[in-house]
Amino acid sequence: MFYILLQMKNNKKGMSRDMGLVVQKFGGTSVGSVERIQHVASRVVQEVENGNEVVVVVSAMGKTTDQLVSLANEITTQPSKREMDMLLTTGEQMTISLLTMALHQKGYEAVSFTGWQAGMQTESIHGNARIQHVDTTHIQSQLKQGKIVVVAGFQGVTKDGNITTLGRGGSDTTAVALAAALKAEKCDIYTDVTGVFTTDPRYIKDARKLQAISYDEMLELANLGAGVLHPRAVEFAKNYQVPLEVRSSLENENGTVVEEEPSMEQNLVVRGIAFEDNISRVTVAGLRNQLQTLSTIFTTLAKNNINVDIIIQHATSSDRMSISFSVKTEDLQETVAVLEQNREILEFEKVEHESQLAKVSIVGSGMISNPGVAADMFEVLAQEKIEVKMVSTSEIKVSTVVPYTDMVKAVETLHVAFELDKQLVTA
Amino acid sequence: MFYILLQMKNNKKGMSRDMGLVVQKFGGTSVGSVERIQHVASRVVQEVENGNEVVVVVSAMGKTTDQLVSLANEITTQPSKREMDMLLTTGEQMTISLLTMALHQKGYEAVSFTGWQAGMQTESIHGNARIQHVDTTHIQSQLKQGKIVVVAGFQGVTKDGNITTLGRGGSDTTAVALAAALKAEKCDIYTDVTGVFTTDPRYIKDARKLQAISYDEMLELANLGAGVLHPRAVEFAKNYQVPLEVRSSLENENGTVVEEEPSMEQNLVVRGIAFEDNISRVTVAGLRNQLQTLSTIFTTLAKNNINVDIIIQHATSSDRMSISFSVKTEDLQETVAVLEQNREILEFEKVEHESQLAKVSIVGSGMISNPGVAADMFEVLAQEKIEVKMVSTSEIKVSTVVPYTDMVKAVETLHVAFELDKQLVTA
Repeated sequence: MFYILLQMKNNKKGMSRDMGLVVQKFGGTSVGSVERIQHVASRVVQEVENGNEVVVVVSAMGKTTDQLVSLANEITTQPSKREMDMLLTTGEQMTISLLTMALHQKGYEAVSFTGWQAGMQTESIHGNARIQHVDTTHIQSQLKQGKIVVVAGFQGVTKDGNITTLGRGGSDTTAVALAAALKAEKCDIYTDVTGVFTTDPRYIKDARKLQAISYDEMLELANLGAGVLHPRAVEFAKNYQVPLEVRSSLENENGTVVEEEPSMEQNLVVRGIAFEDNISRVTVAGLRNQLQTLSTIFTTLAKNNINVDIIIQHATSSDRMSISFSVKTEDLQETVAVLEQNREILEFEKVEHESQLAKVSIVGSGMISNPGVAADMFEVLAQEKIEVKMVSTSEIKVSTVVPYTDMVKAVETLHVAFELDKQLVTA
Repeated sequence: MFYILLQMKNNKKGMSRDMGLVVQKFGGTSVGSVERIQHVASRVVQEVENGNEVVVVVSAMGKTTDQLVSLANEITTQPSKREMDMLLTTGEQMTISLLTMALHQKGYEAVSFTGWQAGMQTESIHGNARIQHVDTTHIQSQLKQGKIVVVAGFQGVTKDGNITTLGRGGSDTTAVALAAALKAEKCDIYTDVTGVFTTDPRYIKDARKLQAISYDEMLELANLGAGVLHPRAVEFAKNYQVPLEVRSSLENENGTVVEEEPSMEQNLVVRGIAFEDNISRVTVAGLRNQLQTLSTIFTTLAKNNINVDIIIQHATSSDRMSISFSVKTEDLQETVAVLEQNREILEFEKVEHESQLAKVSIVGSGMISNPGVAADMFEVLAQEKIEVKMVSTSEIKVSTVVPYTDMVKAVETLHVAFELDKQLVTA
């Protein structure tokens, strides 16, 4: 239902629009200075002039959060998480008041709300709380009075009245949660790019902005480091079927719609290619082939805050096996050190490692109904003589680890092979 | 009761103290940097180590408020008062979190509260709200758990959940209101001076710190620009009989106790001398001697935000009269302009004015029972050939307007004449 309305609006530009409720989210860069806040006010006013009710969610201005963190670090290296939340939430509170003043200055009625005033109730975990309930009473009362409501992103409050924050990408989550609770027609995530691309346009000149993408695909891309939207926000949007649009706060053009089943570009099997450099592969050889081995080795690494990505296990004999896994190169040295420290417990023969690798992944929900996509990918890479060091697959993703020197070539070739460079004809 | 306890403690330094609840307030200068916040933490810890429960009230760091105001002014010259409150209250919120972290760092349990978390309920007036009710439930629950409670000064919340500020000197008022609501043993106002002086030590070298002063005297001195304590806070303290002590955040010495009836120094008729330069006198001559004249002239000035201090009216004939009043010299030009603009309505003959004046006031509750104090003052000034241009009196104050060039001489002579330079022997 929302989806149909949305499509209509995207297609009927310039025509009269239905009155609806829109949630707009602007990140730290978009509100990084007084001038930018004034520009954001113009974008908000534009949506109001289109006949919509508007709720705006904003982050802290530019580097404010970093500055507050270093202030805390001058006092203590281990600040209490409750007090960090108290400190950091001043950042968005500054932005909401300044943006509201800018809206007043343009002659529009507007009112600002902190997280607790906006009814963003969270669990009692500081620094990374999940939203439990949104009480929209105050927001709705202000909307009814014809006001624009400006809400501080990233922050909430516990039942006991303690201020919490939602962790990284928290403002996206605030926006999506509000859109869900207010049954908004859509949620626009304004950012410093114009949308979600088939791959990173900074590396691949033929990278093309997608008109639409599914929640699941966006989740895979977000997790793969595309970085436009926080995975938790995408998950929230999927659970509550909130139609998102990722769009530019500077350029006035359509962005990328994130929704359950993109109707446009549906013939695309692969929707995007993500890639990441500075990957290392670690191989632990001569491990005892026992039930507990896998669990022991990765629990040890996790305890040392080492994030492991792709894992491959292969038995070398009936009582011995090897495990290979990928880590970020910045974690390599510590990974090896941790393994060596635990040599006696883990009972392995040797640790080998290789750096200068990269991860290249293709993502697309069309893979589910199109077997052989992974095979196609391997064939393309083989033709280009690119050695595949590791492979990992999910229902809608195939990831490969390749030499770093072949990363861009791999992406370019796959981009052409899966026809991501071709602009499709849409309704 | 409070008073007796307080005296005992002041006199029995170094001896074991009763366990009690103390409210400490530190202003913007005292928390102006990370180093100063750490120093404040030491002062708080000292009070805890003395066996007291402690609630700390803090202002925004140094110039933070000014910076936030100029940020708002970049956006609009007339910011909404609600949004200014939203913006400015981030200042104290930063300080409470940083001070709490500093207390943790020293190994003490502490928790921070914003105004709304601390239960500071105010009327619905932004920028200058009065406290209506303090719900101390949260604070008391934390104190019971053995924690130091750090509260944001200057801020409150309305019944509807809007953030308000208490106006100038608001943090003093927060501290006093909390002390009253929590039935604290005393409220220490830490500042950048060591106490309340008989007169301004920057001008008069014999100025002496008072050991005690009454609420009423402090009110007169505060209103006369002594500036150590905000009048509203003193009024609040008087109404709820909260024993205050004004003391230095840097020096570790006793300050000045503000209480109902100072027992020490009770033989002093005059407790202090306040003075202020940049005063102008305006005389409006040839006004019609009618009932409405006074009201019309001062309503007109008030509408133009001109603050009038001393007012003298004298009839020059049965149907004509003159009015003289004092204003700050910075307001003189506008005062004359406003009068001239309203010449037809006010029906006066001419406006005369004189600048380069100063106001010198003696304050002391002993005046009530000692008639002739004003006469003594005039005699002292006459002996020094200081011309008195205007006079105004209250029960515990005599103010004179004198030439600016005689200001310091007047204060010096009065300081000696009323024996303010003499250290009195106390119990």
